Amino acid sequence: MAGLFISFEGPDGAGKTTAIKSLAEKISQADSRHVMITREPGGSRIAEKIRQIILDAENVEMDDWTEALLYAASRRQHLVEVIQPALAANQIVLCDRYVDSSIAYQGGGRQLGPQKVADLNNFAIQGVLPELTLYFDLPVEVGLKRIKKIGAGFDRLEGQALAFHERVRQTYLQQLKNNTTRIKSVDATQAPDVIVDQCFELIQPFLTED
Amino acid sequence: MAGLFISFEGPDGAGKTTAIKSLAEKISQADSRHVMITREPGGSRIAEKIRQIILDAENVEMDDWTEALLYAASRRQHLVEVIQPALAANQIVLCDRYVDSSIAYQGGGRQLGPQKVADLNNFAIQGVLPELTLYFDLPVEVGLKRIKKIGAGFDRLEGQALAFHERVRQTYLQQLKNNTTRIKSVDATQAPDVIVDQCFELIQPFLTED
Repeated sequence: MAGLFISFEGPDGAGKTTAIKSLAEKISQADSRHVMITREPGGSRIAEKIRQIILDAENVEMDDWTEALLYAASRRQHLVEVIQPALAANQIVLCDRYVDSSIAYQGGGRQLGPQKVADLNNFAIQGVLPELTLYFDLPVEVGLKRIKKIGAGFDRLEGQALAFHERVRQTYLQQLKNNTTRIKSVDATQAPDVIVDQCFELIQPFLTED
Repeated sequence: MAGLFISFEGPDGAGKTTAIKSLAEKISQADSRHVMITREPGGSRIAEKIRQIILDAENVEMDDWTEALLYAASRRQHLVEVIQPALAANQIVLCDRYVDSSIAYQGGGRQLGPQKVADLNNFAIQGVLPELTLYFDLPVEVGLKRIKKIGAGFDRLEGQALAFHERVRQTYLQQLKNNTTRIKSVDATQAPDVIVDQCFELIQPFLTED
């Protein structure tokens, strides 16, 4: 037995966070390994400080490459301090967003280029990829409407134009095409319990019965 | 006429800062362009915040790649906010440390690999290199003694072992070998006025008489 690393991707409003909680319970019932839920910066003091700079709405003068480099730095620290120790301790790590988010949002959304942002992030992840990535696919309009409905404040990233989010989705779909083994797509317009069932079915082959 | 970008490299204690001040005066007398002295983070608010995280002596848990990514992010923002506008305004930019510092300190000193750190920094500098880089060469022991003599506190980087600084110097010397056109070496054990004269001689071909 060893650890298991699963990441969840897709737009805000796709229901990732809620699904991850339900999945953690279902996985715990099926597998004796400890299940850890995390997301960047995930309790890493340094990663948190870096994230504060990125999300500070005052930082309007931030260059797109600076942003991409900061995300990569935050990711690196979270990986080293949180994810890798958990995997080494034989835990199952459910991570809400990972490298594919940068490829989609900075590479596609901000148009830095998906491949370039992937190359940059290799310095952060040093080859550590999830065994499985579940992509919650959702039409852009549906995702944005859901965010408004739940009344969450729009931060600097969420306040971008519709075209930005469309580029993000198209980049995610391209990532899916390029990584059919690692990334599996789930239709996030479905009912929450249907989504959870479909996710669990995709996770099951990675679980160990004991 | 266009801007001119010159960087200064070498260990702390090599006399870069003092030499840069004298050189700014000499250059101003010979060239009508405005001379700007800067160093990262150089007044960029965002770059300054990033630098605070790097230099915070409390951040003992910082991963070496996180550090390298943060330096690159700070460099990017300083380049975009400070250096490039000055060059666009036809100024002469004297920059105390630039990309070669990361290659020497993170690539060599921290042993991440000079080429890897250079590749990482390409995301930050996007091909923008100085027309001229003056490397202040100094035996490691001399540099460390000078720092102690002037009573400056040892920060997290300066507190590393002698072997670290020896790797930094060897990486600088290798950079010099690989970039003989851009990088010129100056013997920093010489008297300050001799150093300034030698630097100015190397800068003169880049100045425009008018």
